[in-house]
Amino acid sequence: MTAQTITCKAAIAWEAGKPLSVEEVQVAPPKAGEVRIKLTATGVCHTDAFTLSGDDPEGIFPAILGHEGGGVVESIGEGVTSVMVGDHVIPLYTPECGECKFCKSGKTNLCSKIRETQGKGLMPDGTTRFSQNGKPIFHYMGCSTFSEYTVLPEISVAKVNKSAPLEEVCLLGCGVTTGMGAATNAAKVKKGDTVAIFGLGGIGLSAIIGCQMAGAERILAIDINEKKFDLAKQLGATDCINPKNFDKPIQQVIVDMTDGGVDYSFECIGNVNIMRSALECCHKGWGESVIIGVAGAGQEISTRPFQLVTGRVWRGTAFGGVKGRSELPNYVERYLAGEFKLSDFITHTMPLEDINHAFHLMHEGESIRSVIHYAPAAK
Amino acid sequence: MTAQTITCKAAIAWEAGKPLSVEEVQVAPPKAGEVRIKLTATGVCHTDAFTLSGDDPEGIFPAILGHEGGGVVESIGEGVTSVMVGDHVIPLYTPECGECKFCKSGKTNLCSKIRETQGKGLMPDGTTRFSQNGKPIFHYMGCSTFSEYTVLPEISVAKVNKSAPLEEVCLLGCGVTTGMGAATNAAKVKKGDTVAIFGLGGIGLSAIIGCQMAGAERILAIDINEKKFDLAKQLGATDCINPKNFDKPIQQVIVDMTDGGVDYSFECIGNVNIMRSALECCHKGWGESVIIGVAGAGQEISTRPFQLVTGRVWRGTAFGGVKGRSELPNYVERYLAGEFKLSDFITHTMPLEDINHAFHLMHEGESIRSVIHYAPAAK
Repeated sequence: MTAQTITCKAAIAWEAGKPLSVEEVQVAPPKAGEVRIKLTATGVCHTDAFTLSGDDPEGIFPAILGHEGGGVVESIGEGVTSVMVGDHVIPLYTPECGECKFCKSGKTNLCSKIRETQGKGLMPDGTTRFSQNGKPIFHYMGCSTFSEYTVLPEISVAKVNKSAPLEEVCLLGCGVTTGMGAATNAAKVKKGDTVAIFGLGGIGLSAIIGCQMAGAERILAIDINEKKFDLAKQLGATDCINPKNFDKPIQQVIVDMTDGGVDYSFECIGNVNIMRSALECCHKGWGESVIIGVAGAGQEISTRPFQLVTGRVWRGTAFGGVKGRSELPNYVERYLAGEFKLSDFITHTMPLEDINHAFHLMHEGESIRSVIHYAPAAK
Repeated sequence: MTAQTITCKAAIAWEAGKPLSVEEVQVAPPKAGEVRIKLTATGVCHTDAFTLSGDDPEGIFPAILGHEGGGVVESIGEGVTSVMVGDHVIPLYTPECGECKFCKSGKTNLCSKIRETQGKGLMPDGTTRFSQNGKPIFHYMGCSTFSEYTVLPEISVAKVNKSAPLEEVCLLGCGVTTGMGAATNAAKVKKGDTVAIFGLGGIGLSAIIGCQMAGAERILAIDINEKKFDLAKQLGATDCINPKNFDKPIQQVIVDMTDGGVDYSFECIGNVNIMRSALECCHKGWGESVIIGVAGAGQEISTRPFQLVTGRVWRGTAFGGVKGRSELPNYVERYLAGEFKLSDFITHTMPLEDINHAFHLMHEGESIRSVIHYAPAAK
């Protein structure tokens, strides 16, 4: 049986700065090495909003955004062997081919196999699977989860345990894994460490979980939105700090509070000034700062080189350094084992039709994560 | 027998931007916890020139500069137990007390015990041991090796094997150890790695040695002074590159030459623009750049945060991360065992009276290191 084109609902980003529009689109069958997914749920992440705003230099329109999903394999293309129809999968914006220089290095999760086409909103063969009345619509981050159906390369899906609720573990497709992975892969937080986390969105809160699980003794959580503090404390933050309550730069506040600075800091916002603060609040001699947030086009970080010469380290991470196909399934297992909860992050759920409200809640700082629940049956 | 004040010759930096003046100074006896050294030799380093130029925000005048020396303990103050009169020592601008938070951390060589007074040109008790006709002259980097005699805290001298010629191993007091240590301690270069070294002064050339000893397969040496290339190749550089021969930015040249960038890079100049190039020539996913050079006051490094988010790491090092008292003596042993040569670095030797010529040779790019040989007998 050959798969046919499916017509379904998707939230289309027609152009930068405009709301998404939920309309019918055509989703072509998967080609060789590709899989088509029926999405069960998708989170709405700041990165989607960043691209929609027009600040993302790589933003391409019209496109179907969304990159934090969970779904079920509906059909597979020629030669696909690692997943079957019916498998539960999480789409990966960082694929894992296992064959490229990056995958083989053992040092990074940044697979390069399909980077060029993915960056252009295309499938690896240079075309799109989305269209509306014959007009192509671009893919986004290789995922496009704001659609009832999407098509991904086989190397861009992680097969996960079917007993995990996709409405929750979809969050492991981006924010939660990024924050937890940053704490353990990029920073290697150890028992007794002191850490600072800047920005208490989904990633920052996940970084708190990651640091808490790694045994950090003191976890400083920094945000100008004090509404985030209760959950931060519940997840493990020991000190919640609003920089607006101080006349001194926040890095000085933290250095003073921690007898010289923190062992690790995490920037979970995408603000280049906060990236500097995050570096400079690190302890002389060994403190390391990890950039997780994505800054706007053309923005630069800076500091005095003396900060590094005296032993601080500046690094960054994408998707928490986690290799999607080989390592993400284990995050799902750990979730199933009760090591951490995902429900804390999900402040709102809604159908696809209300997706613009999810963006509104995020901009207002009212939500941690809104999760879109798709209707169970395809059209 | 109580030690007396010694009158001897020293090169005095009376003010920024003026040549040194070789005059008689008085060197007081060591107080409790201090030792007085008769210097045998001292290298002349770019950092001395940097401070003399007035660009060093911490520069204090009048002072006796010099920080790359070797000498013999002449007298010891009360309570000194770790060195005896007659011991051969290398002065340390980075002391090692073994007791402070930094020393105890096991993560850094940046001992904090006497940092405040050292930064002010003073001994730990807040006074100077140098004077001329009763007028105090400041210490420099806790060493002041441009004098026939100097006084240092006990924690600021490394006792070394007496069979090592101090006229050569004095270079281990700064440049050579800094470069070699950066390769092995800060960067942890491994067999088969590709590295880039920016700036082929004493530190850059030592970094080549360090990388070569660590098994680097490809060592790119970058300088605009092609006179440095012969020695660089002799020490292990596989490619010597003059950025002036290319229209492209040097980071792009290196990325193109190395299939994506280097595993490690070292900035050995103190130029914030080159620091950026050094970071950006690192391989995506894992390349690490180490800042060794000291930039001018107020200068800042910058880059797009994307460089770090995609896996590059920016770090720095002081004195190559080497702990002076516990680790430097082993560098001397390795030198004695023939693992590396120091004579390659010493392009000129001269008496203290000619020290301004050493600065001239350095500014002209004619020397790697000039070493001052002191007269064997004190006045």
